Amino acid sequence: MKTYIGIDLGGTNVRASLVDESGKVLETVKSPTYADKGAEAVIDNICNLVKQLSNYESASGVGVAAPGPVSRDGSCLSMCTNIKTLAKYPLKKSIEDKLHLPVVLGNDADAAGLAEALVGAGKGLRTIVYITVSTGIGGAIVYDGKLFPGSHGYAMEVGSLSVDGSRNHINLPSNGAIEDWASGTAITRLGNETGKSYKHAGEVFDAYQKDEDVNKIVEQVTTDLAVMFGNLATTIDPDAFVLGGGMMKSSDVFLPLVQDKYRQRVLEALRDTPFLKASLEEPGVVGAAMLPMSNGL
Amino acid sequence: MKTYIGIDLGGTNVRASLVDESGKVLETVKSPTYADKGAEAVIDNICNLVKQLSNYESASGVGVAAPGPVSRDGSCLSMCTNIKTLAKYPLKKSIEDKLHLPVVLGNDADAAGLAEALVGAGKGLRTIVYITVSTGIGGAIVYDGKLFPGSHGYAMEVGSLSVDGSRNHINLPSNGAIEDWASGTAITRLGNETGKSYKHAGEVFDAYQKDEDVNKIVEQVTTDLAVMFGNLATTIDPDAFVLGGGMMKSSDVFLPLVQDKYRQRVLEALRDTPFLKASLEEPGVVGAAMLPMSNGL
Repeated sequence: MKTYIGIDLGGTNVRASLVDESGKVLETVKSPTYADKGAEAVIDNICNLVKQLSNYESASGVGVAAPGPVSRDGSCLSMCTNIKTLAKYPLKKSIEDKLHLPVVLGNDADAAGLAEALVGAGKGLRTIVYITVSTGIGGAIVYDGKLFPGSHGYAMEVGSLSVDGSRNHINLPSNGAIEDWASGTAITRLGNETGKSYKHAGEVFDAYQKDEDVNKIVEQVTTDLAVMFGNLATTIDPDAFVLGGGMMKSSDVFLPLVQDKYRQRVLEALRDTPFLKASLEEPGVVGAAMLPMSNGL
Repeated sequence: MKTYIGIDLGGTNVRASLVDESGKVLETVKSPTYADKGAEAVIDNICNLVKQLSNYESASGVGVAAPGPVSRDGSCLSMCTNIKTLAKYPLKKSIEDKLHLPVVLGNDADAAGLAEALVGAGKGLRTIVYITVSTGIGGAIVYDGKLFPGSHGYAMEVGSLSVDGSRNHINLPSNGAIEDWASGTAITRLGNETGKSYKHAGEVFDAYQKDEDVNKIVEQVTTDLAVMFGNLATTIDPDAFVLGGGMMKSSDVFLPLVQDKYRQRVLEALRDTPFLKASLEEPGVVGAAMLPMSNGL
């Protein structure tokens, strides 16, 4: 059975795993990212981690799941907010030169979506729309076993999707961008605007049906998410949605409301599109490892 | 050079053309559809038309562009508002039995998008989002030379895309559905709600900058279309949008406004995505003929 190396590169920590083609994690090593020490140091550290994995030389390829969109030619990250020195740095070639293995770069939400589509909740389905809701909102389309890339690597930069073009804009350029109105960050902001104090979205959801202000927030947030899912179904018509990210800890509160409102707002044929919960424990490294696999390596 | 037969099946008229693989129309015959005479009569008439085309037996396949979504297995139309007896009727097999040629069914907007992507305005580009704005709003995604189908054949049933989830709904189940607010039908309705009398959207656009009520309508319609294009770019990130349909006769009025508002609302990388005007004179029959070609026939 082929093996791949998956690298889950975050702004704070980095993990490298040896993963087999069924998605099983065989071995994992991790360390801080050292984002403040510059691109060379980040890359040296990644390669040293990989070299700690047993038999790393016999892997069929290396995938890097990174916190930013990948350039059209796949050579670098076109943006990287959390590790600024990696933006436009020749990340692919640098790692290939040090490890003598082929490297495929991917966005972290794309990699997680790929993992869920190939070996997770969406296994066996042809077209998956993966959505991750945590501090931000991201996603991926997986079609025929591959990520749908888009022209600039921006397909499913779905945080910018507008659910209400008449609303004031907050951070993103599109008015009513879903990330500005229904992400964890947004829900915490909306909670705090009521005059109470919430540390994260989970606390807001915990107050549902105990606090009238929170009920109104949940009402609006679930409508906004339903509009987003409706628009995605109307555009992509996937076999299933797969939902991941930290906010799914509160899915008992919001997901039934979202699905109910979704069904009221879409064409009949789309009403039964399943909403599946992401099922992998380590979508980051598994998805990273699937990047070279889905590229035929 | 291979040839294909393209059938553009409308509720009123049907056209059949012999088309070569470069998209050149070699010969065309047409007749009324006879929608009121039932499915058998419609199909007999189609096959009789095809038999009038020179050397029709040597074509590599037949494509039918029909006014409704195609079933997942490609055997029939799952809905057909304009030729009701064709809904769920075994259209593919019926034509194959009569003509002894392989038949591929497609939705009319999908076929037009395929034609524009392969041999029209989008030729040579990898990912095209085609949008047609006329009485309704439809579209198609063409990726790597093929239509992106979706699970139920509903990908890019884009008329239902919501641009403002807080708006009252009109005809479609989604509140703020773009077809209910920016199609030709919608613009005529909005014009007539001002107390004046407009026969079609072109007349409304002709009154732009001459009538304060019309200015407000154009302001809102162009914002709504910009939100739709922004959402499509955010989801698909195409190499280009290709725009067709009858409302494009007024594109000088609305398209610069739409593009300007689009650019203000999307992430920087998406600002320069081109808006191309559909370039084919007969996208219906050419697109129909491309259906078997893009299926490898």
